Amino acid sequence: MDIDQFVAKSIGLWRSMRSGHSLAFQQFEDVLSTISISAAQENDPEIINFLLTNKKADSSKISSPFKMTWKAESDWNTEEESVSSGSCILIPLPVSSNAGLLFRSVGYAEEESAISEYLFLDDGTFILNTKYGQSIAEERIWFASENLRCRSSIIRTSSGTGILQTSFASEVRKIQN
Amino acid sequence: MDIDQFVAKSIGLWRSMRSGHSLAFQQFEDVLSTISISAAQENDPEIINFLLTNKKADSSKISSPFKMTWKAESDWNTEEESVSSGSCILIPLPVSSNAGLLFRSVGYAEEESAISEYLFLDDGTFILNTKYGQSIAEERIWFASENLRCRSSIIRTSSGTGILQTSFASEVRKIQN
Repeated sequence: MDIDQFVAKSIGLWRSMRSGHSLAFQQFEDVLSTISISAAQENDPEIINFLLTNKKADSSKISSPFKMTWKAESDWNTEEESVSSGSCILIPLPVSSNAGLLFRSVGYAEEESAISEYLFLDDGTFILNTKYGQSIAEERIWFASENLRCRSSIIRTSSGTGILQTSFASEVRKIQN
Repeated sequence: MDIDQFVAKSIGLWRSMRSGHSLAFQQFEDVLSTISISAAQENDPEIINFLLTNKKADSSKISSPFKMTWKAESDWNTEEESVSSGSCILIPLPVSSNAGLLFRSVGYAEEESAISEYLFLDDGTFILNTKYGQSIAEERIWFASENLRCRSSIIRTSSGTGILQTSFASEVRKIQN
């Protein structure tokens, strides 16, 4: 698996069931959401803008940039329903066939832009490591079938010693494009 | 990672947060449970008995047999509280340093004895594939740290085409031995 194949397999509209585990408090959070993943053009104004303000990304070497939008409905705060939504540009910069960097306009663990390191395991599992200001996230994404993507995450304290929370999402594709 | 190292790292008393996702009905099931994993002696009567009735396991080639007991408390049926518990013997039979068979006296997806195939990915992730009468299970176990084990599962129909449910457990070790 390389990043172009991975992005191509991820394109579509996905219905996600996601469970978050707060380890210290043994609390569960179950969230249903919709995630849309679409290919972006390398000359998309958002991409060009992001690359201009993030000098680390060499625009001649990026590959398969894509966009994600999501809309989530949480089981917390049922009286005042908590709905979160957002969108994000993701720009891969391969350094070899199975590893590279991924630039994100909005982070996963914290809402700041982020640079992740990615690699593929020998069975095609995608592993993404991201350092934020206050935390470190490890995400894993693998395809159980063409239309089921599994995604786990582990969030550690920035010192790397404590683990704050984990999560797992089952993502079922509803529409392919 | 080989099976002996993996079993040694797994010994202890673990507190598990597990979320099950029923994909067709988009239902969540969150379960807290306690899991105890202990090494078994190769001359343990339960092991000898199991090997006698399961001719496929060559007793001279088994390695690091272990026992698991678990006690779970489900969020379903809150009026009539649903508690499940059980125990199981697991007997690895390595065929190479990173792959082999695993005999279980009680299966994971169905309550029958089962023979699984296991392999380790290059980062040490343990993958276990099991065919039952009515279903096929893929489990993945990996260590996020010495005291946090992550475990995911995917249950398919026995024809392999439909995916019935997924689950994810965050297991925190409370006692090492």
